[in-house]
Amino acid sequence: MGMIGGGPGAFIGAVHRIAANMDGEIELVCGAFSSDPEKSKQTGQELNLPMNRVYGSYKEMIRAEAELPPSERMDIVSIVTPNHVHFEPAKLALEKRAFHVILDKPLAFNLDEAKKLHEIAKKSQLQFCLTHTYTGYPMVKEARHFVQSGKLGRIRKIYVDYPQGWLSQFLEGAAPDSKSFKQASWRTDPTQSGSAGAMGDIGTHAFNLAEYVSGLKVTHICADINIVVDGRKLDDDGTVMLKFENGASGFLYATQVAAGEENNTKVRVYGEKGGIEWKQEDANTLLVRWFDKPAEIYRAGTPYLSSFAKHNIRTPAGHPEGYLEAFANLYRNFALCVKAQIAGITPQPEWLDFPGVEDGLRGMEFVEKVLESGKSEIKWTKL
Amino acid sequence: MGMIGGGPGAFIGAVHRIAANMDGEIELVCGAFSSDPEKSKQTGQELNLPMNRVYGSYKEMIRAEAELPPSERMDIVSIVTPNHVHFEPAKLALEKRAFHVILDKPLAFNLDEAKKLHEIAKKSQLQFCLTHTYTGYPMVKEARHFVQSGKLGRIRKIYVDYPQGWLSQFLEGAAPDSKSFKQASWRTDPTQSGSAGAMGDIGTHAFNLAEYVSGLKVTHICADINIVVDGRKLDDDGTVMLKFENGASGFLYATQVAAGEENNTKVRVYGEKGGIEWKQEDANTLLVRWFDKPAEIYRAGTPYLSSFAKHNIRTPAGHPEGYLEAFANLYRNFALCVKAQIAGITPQPEWLDFPGVEDGLRGMEFVEKVLESGKSEIKWTKL
Amino acid sequence: MGMIGGGPGAFIGAVHRIAANMDGEIELVCGAFSSDPEKSKQTGQELNLPMNRVYGSYKEMIRAEAELPPSERMDIVSIVTPNHVHFEPAKLALEKRAFHVILDKPLAFNLDEAKKLHEIAKKSQLQFCLTHTYTGYPMVKEARHFVQSGKLGRIRKIYVDYPQGWLSQFLEGAAPDSKSFKQASWRTDPTQSGSAGAMGDIGTHAFNLAEYVSGLKVTHICADINIVVDGRKLDDDGTVMLKFENGASGFLYATQVAAGEENNTKVRVYGEKGGIEWKQEDANTLLVRWFDKPAEIYRAGTPYLSSFAKHNIRTPAGHPEGYLEAFANLYRNFALCVKAQIAGITPQPEWLDFPGVEDGLRGMEFVEKVLESGKSEIKWTKL
Amino acid sequence: MGMIGGGPGAFIGAVHRIAANMDGEIELVCGAFSSDPEKSKQTGQELNLPMNRVYGSYKEMIRAEAELPPSERMDIVSIVTPNHVHFEPAKLALEKRAFHVILDKPLAFNLDEAKKLHEIAKKSQLQFCLTHTYTGYPMVKEARHFVQSGKLGRIRKIYVDYPQGWLSQFLEGAAPDSKSFKQASWRTDPTQSGSAGAMGDIGTHAFNLAEYVSGLKVTHICADINIVVDGRKLDDDGTVMLKFENGASGFLYATQVAAGEENNTKVRVYGEKGGIEWKQEDANTLLVRWFDKPAEIYRAGTPYLSSFAKHNIRTPAGHPEGYLEAFANLYRNFALCVKAQIAGITPQPEWLDFPGVEDGLRGMEFVEKVLESGKSEIKWTKL
Repeated sequence: MGMIGGGPGAFIGAVHRIAANMDGEIELVCGAFSSDPEKSKQTGQELNLPMNRVYGSYKEMIRAEAELPPSERMDIVSIVTPNHVHFEPAKLALEKRAFHVILDKPLAFNLDEAKKLHEIAKKSQLQFCLTHTYTGYPMVKEARHFVQSGKLGRIRKIYVDYPQGWLSQFLEGAAPDSKSFKQASWRTDPTQSGSAGAMGDIGTHAFNLAEYVSGLKVTHICADINIVVDGRKLDDDGTVMLKFENGASGFLYATQVAAGEENNTKVRVYGEKGGIEWKQEDANTLLVRWFDKPAEIYRAGTPYLSSFAKHNIRTPAGHPEGYLEAFANLYRNFALCVKAQIAGITPQPEWLDFPGVEDGLRGMEFVEKVLESGKSEIKWTKL
Repeated sequence: MGMIGGGPGAFIGAVHRIAANMDGEIELVCGAFSSDPEKSKQTGQELNLPMNRVYGSYKEMIRAEAELPPSERMDIVSIVTPNHVHFEPAKLALEKRAFHVILDKPLAFNLDEAKKLHEIAKKSQLQFCLTHTYTGYPMVKEARHFVQSGKLGRIRKIYVDYPQGWLSQFLEGAAPDSKSFKQASWRTDPTQSGSAGAMGDIGTHAFNLAEYVSGLKVTHICADINIVVDGRKLDDDGTVMLKFENGASGFLYATQVAAGEENNTKVRVYGEKGGIEWKQEDANTLLVRWFDKPAEIYRAGTPYLSSFAKHNIRTPAGHPEGYLEAFANLYRNFALCVKAQIAGITPQPEWLDFPGVEDGLRGMEFVEKVLESGKSEIKWTKL
Repeated sequence: MGMIGGGPGAFIGAVHRIAANMDGEIELVCGAFSSDPEKSKQTGQELNLPMNRVYGSYKEMIRAEAELPPSERMDIVSIVTPNHVHFEPAKLALEKRAFHVILDKPLAFNLDEAKKLHEIAKKSQLQFCLTHTYTGYPMVKEARHFVQSGKLGRIRKIYVDYPQGWLSQFLEGAAPDSKSFKQASWRTDPTQSGSAGAMGDIGTHAFNLAEYVSGLKVTHICADINIVVDGRKLDDDGTVMLKFENGASGFLYATQVAAGEENNTKVRVYGEKGGIEWKQEDANTLLVRWFDKPAEIYRAGTPYLSSFAKHNIRTPAGHPEGYLEAFANLYRNFALCVKAQIAGITPQPEWLDFPGVEDGLRGMEFVEKVLESGKSEIKWTKL
Repeated sequence: MGMIGGGPGAFIGAVHRIAANMDGEIELVCGAFSSDPEKSKQTGQELNLPMNRVYGSYKEMIRAEAELPPSERMDIVSIVTPNHVHFEPAKLALEKRAFHVILDKPLAFNLDEAKKLHEIAKKSQLQFCLTHTYTGYPMVKEARHFVQSGKLGRIRKIYVDYPQGWLSQFLEGAAPDSKSFKQASWRTDPTQSGSAGAMGDIGTHAFNLAEYVSGLKVTHICADINIVVDGRKLDDDGTVMLKFENGASGFLYATQVAAGEENNTKVRVYGEKGGIEWKQEDANTLLVRWFDKPAEIYRAGTPYLSSFAKHNIRTPAGHPEGYLEAFANLYRNFALCVKAQIAGITPQPEWLDFPGVEDGLRGMEFVEKVLESGKSEIKWTKL
């Protein structure tokens, strides 16, 4: 695997590397870690990479690696740059018809790019993974499986909560060398993040969870989108009412100004006979409520789970796995599919269960429409 | 105290009597427990009332009691009938200028009645309590106090959850002598309940909580109102986005089709510096989150609470009080104010902290507007 | 009902009165609220009692009430004095063969008194209730029922936790007019409390829970009993390992120096197939764990509970009841049995389910033996 | 790094490899994965190791690797065999004066071996890590730090809970090719596990936590040790009362027959002013209770934690880390110390904070004494 981005001070680059390392199936062999060649070298050294495979730019890396014999070059490229540098390297990697792509979400800087990338990826016959991390949690997979099993009856209500509090203050105004500044500044900067702030950063995760767990498509949205903190350029808060294709309804909200909240993602789905609830802060539990009998606590690592949950957990019940393992599950399933493709074998259904380029396109459509709805005086906007 | 309604099979009548009994300050002396005089007698006997003060109708009771000397007659009338029998008995009691009124919510069958009753009550100089139970919880009072203290900074987000699941099935179609039927049938019947179902039954509680805890008025709403269960005549579900007078925003939702949920009321308010969270299912706790320090767990019965919380709890920390005590707090504070009025003394601020006729009027305005918004294609409706 | 004790500043007297009031079935008609006649009068006035039935001493009250015609006199006497004034009034009441007795635990000041009182009560054919409050909780009753149903298989392990923190400081050294002093001083004074401190005050509750829920008798104990706070005269902490008649084992601990704990009573019982857990701080839940399937959350107020739980709850699921309702359940069941006896009817099994004089005797045996074990160098002491 | 053990079907071997991989600082270069050379090869192939460095026995591996030039050979040997194969390979590795050792607990098969190994390790000047995983959790480190800060005052009570339920049935009697059998059979077999079952397997973890978090040594124990499941050869359950050097007291219990429990490790420490609680099932939280103010929730990933906690977490607050990360922290700190030693630099205090050979020796002393106490009729046994 090679990596684009993830140089000094990056948060998500380190997370991707841990995720890739965890199961010992993926080896980092090269990287272009920064648009500044010196910084790229520094990171390459820290990671003990051979210096001839630490590149000064992603273009250089993709070109050089493509020239290596297939057995030596990277198979996979992991792109972990800010949003405005997603499209170009992904396009380049795919067009070389050589590199499977794993891309930090969102898919692209805007919907137009996203559509193009979707088309390129579809044509490429290469594997493509977009890291909507939350769908990597085993109990989120169990939740989806539970809904699909029909045990809850027809689905009626879907609620997704996503409160964070870290942008409650104007951190992008902090000292430029502070850690807060680094994270806050690009995420709140339209030239790096795109047209959306919170809606792009975490709203798309919430949206992806809603559709993934329910197995239903959103058809209409009605959004209240806000810039809460004075001086901020992008939305830091929003509530979105949702209508689904089967007549179900609900909402998602995503806010970064719920002061004191960490990353409190929660999804609930209710059907005629019962409902399920999953919270990231208690990630190894799926609560199943029933209309007429005691609620049940499904737990990761137990023998009674579906094969989709079981495939994505490493330890027996009572040994909590978390965010990094969920992330690693994306990498592992992606890698299993890449290996299957290389070996010419049919991947198992459990391996195929990772978010791809369609999820990415869908997320970008959501972002565009949610901002449109936010500005509209009409209640419902089609998605 | 005399009671109107609360005959055989009623749920809320028994709750009112427990609430009135609990602190030994209010004595039930008479009642018109049913529109059926036989049933009224039956309940009167079960309650060991003298049979000459068990009346066949509320009109008879109000007339007869008014003729008794002040020292013997009931001081307070508690009205616990279905919604369509709120206005008349309350009006009658107030117009006699003799009876303080405690009325189960909602204030009336429709906004027009509500406005009239509000006016009558204001003129009457009698005490009036509307039983928005949740504001009787000591930790809800602490929440309000906490917001008012300014410790959270300016308020930005207000969220109220109110999921129930008991109407997930068409219970109003159950056997007419079943317990479910009794509760479900009148609440889903427009001729008894009014124009709203879930929005009136529990949505108004959620709305009252939002304004009570935040201390802010809602100015605009955007509602998605649904009848989820086939055959039902009134809404059983709704989500409402909210804008507040100070620029804060948020939502409330109230649903009776979240299968498996009991009565999971939750309110959260976030300001610049932190946020608070209260859940009825853990009613003795107020969670206080901070932007930059550990969250704190405020607990009922502790010495560090405000006088408003302390005044409303009977036991030391670790001895959970619940719904009935919250209800009893409404009765106790109401009774303290009635007694203060009779004795000609100034009530303490803590006594005055119970929901009154303005809350009732506000609730009816909310119901009318939320249904209007539900039908509107325009996003925001003024409140 | 008449009350002995419960004068100004008493905590438990007020709790008893709320418990008696709550369901409207018991009326307080007289009292001897303090050994100081002036204070007794003061409390009587506050409670709106007729002054001719507010007595200056319990002896006077029992004598005077016994001389009233049965239809007028109190049926029940509630004794809520400090431990050293339990035996005499209870004995007097029972020997008059007129008054059913409800007595705050412990049964007596020492085992000798307890044995005598037990004998007197057994002979008296009067109802006797000892207020081990925790067994009044509906979900504790469900726990007992669950064990007895055999669903857990043979019982193997029983653990009871009872941490409090309020005696972490030397409160008995506080200003004598402070609230803390009042509660702390008599409970830590051997002349008022008896030979045990924490073991008598809360250890007996833990012991009673262990035997009540498991349905098993403790046969051997091994205790580590401590005075943790300097200057204190009685134990404020202890751990006791337990062996049960069927070969099961476990422990209880009761401490009043777990600083920051409120009243965190918890009981767990494990059998071959699963286990149950109940915590007072989440009193309306019974957690049922299974060896080979998801844990279940049994909730108060639901239709699927046993008749023993259902009989002891007033509200539907999701309306939390608490400590006062648990206390009221003791009063209600006791009153139902008293009324059944007066009416000559057979009480229902659910009514009979309240702690009685045998539980009290058993508790006093536990106290004596646990102190003996605490001093012994031999591991196991027979109970 | 080379690995001894961890062949097909092993649970803990895979955990060690994930832990070593996670942070990308340790590379697995060789292994002797099974005493069966064929199985060793099979695992080596699965792990993509060069076959010339997959050995048929640990003796062969240690000999062969020692002959490689220092720059090529493994630096670290990770030993993950059953308990009876801990001493010999560790001894061999240390005596070669070439390999730093990371050893799955317990330190050895019996106390005699443990003492020898302790002596050898001390003389060797090599780094030695014993994987008491729980002390790798950042919030356990915060707990220790919190106690040491003195904020709780003098420590009075220490309680450790460790309930598991997986051995509630006689799994060692299951089909020999079942997964359950593999784990259950060696752990319950005296010839592979040693003299202790549950006390060695999980009791030592509980003991280690008690001393690590409190910073206090246990001086006396009083144990009730049981074989609960018929036919089992080693203890599957025990409760141990504890006395500590400073006069504090408490207990630990460790059971594998609490049917339905997963791995519910919990540690609580109370001092004069407050107490702390950590539970593995909510591993990213440290609850801090105070005598006279609201409890606080300390959370992993926040800026206000000690350097010891911060050093051991990879992600911001709200991204849960778990058991594998705790395990990885042991590996990472161990590796940092190994690298520091190689580089001749002074390790930071945070790096040195991993369990070592003294913890291992202490654990074996605990096991020996706890079994002795279990059989004794005298209450207290010195440790």
